[in-house]
Parts: sequence; C-alpha cells; structure tokens
Amino acid sequence: MYELHFAVPMAGAIICALNSRLDAAMASDLLQHSEAKVVFIDAALLGVAQEALHLMSVAGARAPVVVLIRGEVSTSSTTQHDYEDIVSRGGSPEFAVQLPADENEPIALSFTSGTTSRPKGVIYSHRGAYLNSLFSVLLNEMASKPVYLWTVPMFHCNGWCMTWGVAAQGGTNVFLRKVTGAAIFDAICRHGVTHMGGVATVLSMIVNTAPEDRRPLPAGKVSVVTGGAPPPPTVLSGMDELGFLVIHTYGLTETYGAATVCAWMPEWDALPAEEQAEIKARQGLQHLGLEVDVKDPATMRSIPADGKTVGEVMLRGNTVMSGYYKDAPATAKAMAGGWFRSADLAVRNPGDGYLKFQDRSQDVIISGGGEKISTIQVEEALFAHPAVAEAAVVGRPDEHSGETPCAFVVLRRKREVEAEEVMEFCKKKLPRYKAPSTVVVVDELPKTATGKVQKLLLREKARAMGSLSDPPPSPVLEEEHEEAPNKV
Amino acid sequence: MYELHFAVPMAGAIICALNSRLDAAMASDLLQHSEAKVVFIDAALLGVAQEALHLMSVAGARAPVVVLIRGEVSTSSTTQHDYEDIVSRGGSPEFAVQLPADENEPIALSFTSGTTSRPKGVIYSHRGAYLNSLFSVLLNEMASKPVYLWTVPMFHCNGWCMTWGVAAQGGTNVFLRKVTGAAIFDAICRHGVTHMGGVATVLSMIVNTAPEDRRPLPAGKVSVVTGGAPPPPTVLSGMDELGFLVIHTYGLTETYGAATVCAWMPEWDALPAEEQAEIKARQGLQHLGLEVDVKDPATMRSIPADGKTVGEVMLRGNTVMSGYYKDAPATAKAMAGGWFRSADLAVRNPGDGYLKFQDRSQDVIISGGGEKISTIQVEEALFAHPAVAEAAVVGRPDEHSGETPCAFVVLRRKREVEAEEVMEFCKKKLPRYKAPSTVVVVDELPKTATGKVQKLLLREKARAMGSLSDPPPSPVLEEEHEEAPNKV
Repeated sequence: MYELHFAVPMAGAIICALNSRLDAAMASDLLQHSEAKVVFIDAALLGVAQEALHLMSVAGARAPVVVLIRGEVSTSSTTQHDYEDIVSRGGSPEFAVQLPADENEPIALSFTSGTTSRPKGVIYSHRGAYLNSLFSVLLNEMASKPVYLWTVPMFHCNGWCMTWGVAAQGGTNVFLRKVTGAAIFDAICRHGVTHMGGVATVLSMIVNTAPEDRRPLPAGKVSVVTGGAPPPPTVLSGMDELGFLVIHTYGLTETYGAATVCAWMPEWDALPAEEQAEIKARQGLQHLGLEVDVKDPATMRSIPADGKTVGEVMLRGNTVMSGYYKDAPATAKAMAGGWFRSADLAVRNPGDGYLKFQDRSQDVIISGGGEKISTIQVEEALFAHPAVAEAAVVGRPDEHSGETPCAFVVLRRKREVEAEEVMEFCKKKLPRYKAPSTVVVVDELPKTATGKVQKLLLREKARAMGSLSDPPPSPVLEEEHEEAPNKV
Repeated sequence: MYELHFAVPMAGAIICALNSRLDAAMASDLLQHSEAKVVFIDAALLGVAQEALHLMSVAGARAPVVVLIRGEVSTSSTTQHDYEDIVSRGGSPEFAVQLPADENEPIALSFTSGTTSRPKGVIYSHRGAYLNSLFSVLLNEMASKPVYLWTVPMFHCNGWCMTWGVAAQGGTNVFLRKVTGAAIFDAICRHGVTHMGGVATVLSMIVNTAPEDRRPLPAGKVSVVTGGAPPPPTVLSGMDELGFLVIHTYGLTETYGAATVCAWMPEWDALPAEEQAEIKARQGLQHLGLEVDVKDPATMRSIPADGKTVGEVMLRGNTVMSGYYKDAPATAKAMAGGWFRSADLAVRNPGDGYLKFQDRSQDVIISGGGEKISTIQVEEALFAHPAVAEAAVVGRPDEHSGETPCAFVVLRRKREVEAEEVMEFCKKKLPRYKAPSTVVVVDELPKTATGKVQKLLLREKARAMGSLSDPPPSPVLEEEHEEAPNKV
C-alpha cells in the first residue's frame, strides 16, 4: 500500500485505497463506482476480494486487471499477476514519470468512512496532497529522518497524507499487520519510533496495555498526532506519563486529514492536569494550508468567540477536496456558499479563538423541557470517572421527557463498577437533567474502521430499550458476550 | 523591518528591503528603479537616506512618503511620519487585509547583491514566498515555537524567507543591531536560541570568538543554516565542538534563498572528521520546492553523476523568481531554455548525485600550459592549514604562465605564519602548478553585504601586482592597516 502511494501517481494513475474491512458487496460497489482498472489485493483479503470481483462480473462491470500482493500470507491462490514478481522484474529504467499536466488534476480518490451514509468518493488533487503532506510533517513536529509507526490506516485520507510526508522527510516507515498495545510498544523500542498517529481508541489501547506487554520508551518523547474524537482526559494524562507527546488535531476526509491543531501554549504547562486535559481536547486553530471558520449556516456570518455561540465548522482553501466523485449534487450542497460545510458544531474560545466541539446536530439530546443537552458534556463527566475507559452518550426516547441521556461505557482493565455509582458520580458533576439516567456497560463500542464511534447504532439500541418512564426497568443489563465479566 | 514583512503585503503593497550598506547614489537609483511610494528609514541610516532622497529630487523623481523608524537611535531629526506614532495610533480594526487576486502576484522585490554588476530586482510571488517559507522551516529542522536569532540580513532574499517562516512556526525572533561573536553567544544564552543562519563568515566569527566572550550553550544543539560559500573544514569542526549543528545549503536571490541542502546521511557519522567536513561542504540536493539540475548549457543535457563532468547549475519550479523587474532581456537570458541559469558550475557525486561546486567560469585560472585550475581546490588546500581562517584565490597575470594562483588569506586569531610556509604547505597538497605562487596575508577579505567574497576586487589587486615572472619580487607584503601584526 505504501509503495503504491508512489507507483500509482508516478504512472499517471489515481490511487484509490479501499478500506480493508469492507464486505464484498460494498467493495464491489466502490470498485464499480471508481471504475478501477487495476486492483491490487493483499492476500489476507483475497476471499472478500474474489467475491467482490465475482459480484462485479455478475453486474456486468468490466473486469479490472488483478495483482496479488502475497505479503506475509502464504497462499496457493493465484491471480493474473503477482506483485512481487512484477517488482522483481525491475520495470523499465527508461520509464518517464507521468507528471500531471495541471497541479489540480486528481491524485487520489478517498472514500469517507460513512458513519451515517454510503461512503462518498472524495477527490484529492496533486496540489492539495503536496501541500497537506508538508503540513502533516509540520503538525507532527517532524524533523528530517523520522521513524514513523503506522497505526493510522492508509485507506483513511491516504494516512492523513503521512504516506508522502514521511517520504518528504526521508523517514523510515514501520508497519504492523495487527495493531495491539504490545505490538506498538515492541515496534517503538525495536525501531526507535519517533512519531506515530492514532485515533483516541489507539491511545486508549496504549494506555490500557497490560504492564507485562509494555516496554520502557527510548529517550525523547514519541509524538502522537491524534484526530477524530478528542481523547478522554485520563487517556491524555496516561499518555503523558508513559512518555508520549499527544498533539490533538481535527479534520475530515474532505480536508485530506488534519485541518486544525490544538497548538499548545507554554503558559498552560502550569495549569492543573485536569485543566490541561480539557484544553488539549479542544480542536484548536487552522493550520496554514486552509481557512477554518465557525459560521451560522443560515447567514454564513462568523460566530463570535464567546465560548457560547454555536456555529458550524466550515473550511476552504488548498487542502479542501476538489469535490465528490460523480456526485455533483452532494458536492454543491457541501460547498454551498464557497465553504465546505463539515456538519460539525463548535464554539470558539474567548481570546484565543480555539475551536471546541459541540455535538453534531443529530447528536444533541432534546429533553422534555426543550433544553438541549450536549452529549459531549455528558461524556466528559463520564470520562472523569476513574473506572471508565470509553463512553458514548445518545438520546433514549422517553414518553415524559422527550429524550433522556443514555450512556454506553467501556470499563478500564480489571475495574468493576455499578451503573448506579456512575450515575451518582455524574449527578455531582452535571445539572440533574443532563446526568445520564441510563448507563450500559459494554465490552466495546461500535466503531467505524477509522475509530469513530457509530452513534447511529447506539441510538438504535437506545430506541430499542423503549421509554425510561415506562418499564423496562433501569438500569439495563446488557451481556453482549457471555464470557464478559462486566457488570451493570 | 520584520513587522513590515507582514504589514506591507497585508496592505496589498510590495516589500522592497534595501541593503543597509548602500551608498546614497545606489539607494537613490534603486528607489527610483522600484518606484517606491513609501520609504521606511531606520534612524541609524537617516544621513544616507536623506542624501538619497535629495538625489531623487534632483533627478526629478516623484518624492515618496517618508516614515522614520527611530529604533534605539536617539535623533532630533524628523520626517513626514514617525513609525512608532503610527503604530501607537493603532490603525483601523475594520481594515481588510488585501489578499492578492492571484497567488502569482508579486509580494517582494529583492535586489541581488551585485557582486559583479548593478543589482537586479528579483520578483518574488506570494505563491513562491509561501512555499519557500515552509521549506525554510523544514531546512532549518524547525519544530513549532523556535527561537530564531537573526544574523542573516532581512534585505537578502527577505531573510531567506525565514521572516515568514519563523512566524509560520509561532517562533520568537531575536535581533542584533551589530553582529559580533560576543553578541551571538550572549543572545543564544539569554533567549534560549534554537536556530540561526549565517554565511561562512558568521560561522568563522563564532568559531574565532575570544574565549572570554564565549558562553556555554544551552542544552541541545543550536541549528545553523549556512549558505553562500561553503564554510572551511576547520570552521565546521569548530562549530561542531561548540555545540552547533551546521546545515549547508546553496541558493541565490533568484531562488528565494536556499535551493539545495547537503542532507546528512547517518552512515557518514563514522567517517574521519576531515572527510565529514569535505562532504558537509557539498551543495547537496534540491529541496521539494523546485528542481535543480546540472546541465551542459549548450545542449541543455544533464551531465552524468561521475564526480568529474562539470556543468552549470540550473533551477526551475515554484521557488524560482518570476523574473527581473523592468529587465525583460536579462530575464529572457537567465531563463533561456525554461531553466534559470545560475552561472554556478558543479559536478555531481557518483551514487548520491550530490552537487559539488566548481569555480564559476570567470573564477577559473588558466595556466600557461592551458590547464584549468580550480580556485576552490586551491582554497581547500589553504583552509587545511591550521593558521588560515579565510582564503580566496584568484588568477594573477603572468607573462610566462598566463595566470598563476594568487591567494589572499586571513589568519586565525593570534596565529602568525609566513607566506612561504603556506606556499610550501600547499605544494604538498596540490600538483605544483596549482599551488599558489603568491600568498598575501590580509586583515579581511572584501565582501558583499551578504558575505560573499568579492573576487572581482581581488582580481584587480592581483592584476595591479603585475606579472610574477617579472619583478616585483614575490611574496608580496601588504599592510592594509598599519597596526596589523600580520606578516607575509
């Protein structure tokens, strides 16, 4: 995958890195949508891929050329071509790299992770990818010759453009077949990793690695750029204690990866750890490759930096996508007014203007009194509980109150806690109507391949529970896995 | 000057930073050539500036608006406007930053240092300056919030674009009214300087700072990007011992500053110090903002990387100037064939392709036998002598031999040496016809404001000495300053 990030554009083609967790139907759908001419298949995914190719053939789509990458998987299967065979034959030294005639020509098609809908094909230009590669280097605080550990999937925004960024800095890439806490510690020590990236769940995985699987880090901090959901305060302080420097960014597939960074101010070093974690969880300010603003979507006026007024995060500039592939209506809608509309809601901090997320509009809980409840605020209260490793809050329908906050939590290793205790804890931290009236302990939260919690699925679960004011009784006991020792 | 690098472009104007060492006639000439509408004058230069304005008025040029920057100089002089007055009045909060309509619009006019001819006005675009600011950050190995010490003049390529680069990284700028070794050590320790830049002579100044004026550096290396003439090996090893990390780059005013960098390979760490210094003095490879090639100027074919074939260094891409202001013929000549022709001669190292300079064509000495003598090679031999701090070699006319190598050397502090000893030393290092047959010890070498040795002036001196084969006798004694203790 890494090599193809160079070979494909140099051949004048467009790279479309597909999510390795797609099922055959979706893979077939996206291969047809992208009109892929050559498909490179990792042997570990051969089953799904062959099924997808079969579905394409049934649908009458033109068959692509197929190249098998054996990697570490031993398989007797064959396809039309074998990647290592092709590489070992060496190619032609006279081959002229196919530069784009125009820098705005596409270099990549990157599908969104599709939390709520069918993935959209986001078009990246050579110009945007070049610039965001440079910004990925700067955001990572990356000097020349870094050693980069890949836990960010390369099918997600082409690895936040670090694929090209690491090469730009003459770096070394370290890959893992399977991302686990033990594998991460092992790779860091074995290869002298200086930089890595990961969504909040990867950070949580690191912090919750069993002591026997941890290894002391080499001298100097390991920089970890995180994006997506802000990591909970306990995870941030845990990472700090272990010797990681966490850099919190925010971005979307439509912005080639990170668009904002919570740049750290030296004067914050003196604040209490809890306050530092709260600041670190902010989305921060735009990097130099684009403009980010928070606007009233109706008037397109910028909202004031007062910490209260909520607006929609909007972005424009060099590192905003060219558009959605074969979807002019969606492109026009997303870009209406000349800005890309993220659907993410935020306030700006007074003084420094740092962005801080509020719920996406579909995530806000509307209580019976019409009060809006920010699920992010409820989640922050949950994260403050020492036994809580992960938490996600959605609205649960209620005949009396409209919706009540319903929390799904994952406990830290070897911790047990009663749902009642968690609810009591939250009542001390929040106005009573905001405290969750349902707490469900689960083994894991449903997530997209890129680590975003799928609140849609949780909302469905909450809806299935029915109204709280009518029985079934609360708290709800859920045993997703029979062997799970977790209690409600 | 630093503030104006932001205020002027934000006002939609073009910044033209003039060399602070210009005389009134040249200043008047360049102000007229650039059609400056507003002139900001540092009080320390008020005398020259007023004379220049007078000359402009005599020539019938339109008088610009004049703003006086008092700085640290106390003066009773007044001009139309006072900079600090204007700043303290605060300006209008409603002022809309004037963005360029097109990214290729000019942001700066930067005059060449004019070693051999009248300075040319080099046009920088917003696009080129933006990109080179990013590359200046990367070449400096600069993480966020650097502390940058200014010894690079801001009138030279807008400080190699570090003016904007330091701001891009949220850095602190440290300025010196007068650049001396003591002031550099003092500033580094007082402000925790992390990065600086300087031509070879600034490095030499640091290494030759009297022990009582030195101060131990803070923890961590101070990065020093150097450009122009490669620093001599003794200076490089001296800098290393003091705790500086020297990064050797090459560029021209026409390339916004650095265009190539001698990127260091870890495997070179094991080489003997002398060999390391030799490698470090190479010009290296292009950075990612432009293309650099070494070509036969007649055929425009790339020369082979064989360490022998000499070609002309040519450059094209984002960080190559838009052209020379009001000088279409010079622009067309410099850009003939679609590449900017640097007039610098180089070979490429076998294997890695690193550029290594050979003499500019006008610098090559042609001996009586028609052999070409590289003055760089002769200078390298001179630098190896422990008493030699600086050296420059030019051709001295000779009735028998056409030209013979003539060396001008500056001795290291408190070192004395006879010219004969230096000549004998070189004879052991070089083929006899390449060893200098004239060695002149001087207090300092004539240099441009940006630290380039003015070989033109040295050639005139050598010419004035007459032929070596006829008397006057050799070695030549030159006492530029009567108090100078240096001997021939």
